[in-house]
Amino acid sequence: MKTLADAFEHTLQDMYYAENAIAKSLPDVISAVSRKELKTDLTAHLDETKGQIKTLEKVFKTIGKKPAGEKCDAIEGLIKETESVMSDAKGASAKNAALIGCCQAIEHYEIARYGTLREWAKSLGNEEAHDLLTSILDQEKAANHKLTHMAVTMVNNS
Amino acid sequence: MKTLADAFEHTLQDMYYAENAIAKSLPDVISAVSRKELKTDLTAHLDETKGQIKTLEKVFKTIGKKPAGEKCDAIEGLIKETESVMSDAKGASAKNAALIGCCQAIEHYEIARYGTLREWAKSLGNEEAHDLLTSILDQEKAANHKLTHMAVTMVNNS
Repeated sequence: MKTLADAFEHTLQDMYYAENAIAKSLPDVISAVSRKELKTDLTAHLDETKGQIKTLEKVFKTIGKKPAGEKCDAIEGLIKETESVMSDAKGASAKNAALIGCCQAIEHYEIARYGTLREWAKSLGNEEAHDLLTSILDQEKAANHKLTHMAVTMVNNS
Repeated sequence: MKTLADAFEHTLQDMYYAENAIAKSLPDVISAVSRKELKTDLTAHLDETKGQIKTLEKVFKTIGKKPAGEKCDAIEGLIKETESVMSDAKGASAKNAALIGCCQAIEHYEIARYGTLREWAKSLGNEEAHDLLTSILDQEKAANHKLTHMAVTMVNNS
């Protein structure tokens, strides 16, 4: 990794790996939570994630590369943390609250990465990638806001 | 983990582990970056991190527990990712840009976790913990803004 273009490609591969890992792990989280609205929101986010994978494939196209994932230690750690909570948390409301927390940690990881990637795209003069990455970033921010709202509503009603 | 109070204590232990791990790893990042203002900002954030560890010890006190760390897979993964970038990135500007990206991913992890923790503190009626955690959250958000500014300035000048 010597240039900004290399860093961009490498981080794009990380995120392609990350989104695929999230799409694989979300169904378990959806089964583990008990609150109906939370299940509904996470199910909608799973669909959104599958769409984001397609959007990332378009970003690869803008740099003339085939979509490829690179093992991403950060998302592996975040998912491992989520799995621990799924097996350790017992009471329904504690489990829901703790899993929302894990999902928000993952959303924030994505917000950080897409924020960086879209700035790099702009700097590299790749407007198409900038716009595609901004559309994903906006979705992640909206998903995070929904989770914050759900968390605040839940703890106030518990 | 059965109650919100259990989830709070567990996540507090995660963050105590995380802040200690960050304090241990930041000096390597400071050595690895070449841009002077970035070294200065990260050095200031290292001091801030040491202060946050003391603040977390006060939060433990509010729940009548001794400070203890719990291995946190998420921060382990985020630091592992940072270490890969330190060894793989070669050109100075790509290395600076990529390491800012890693630091922002860590900041966002902390923003997510402290955001959750302070809401839980409020819901548990622990105002003192809420205020202490809010003070850390504000520092993390400010540190992240500084990094965004640095990233945007750097890529525009490269």
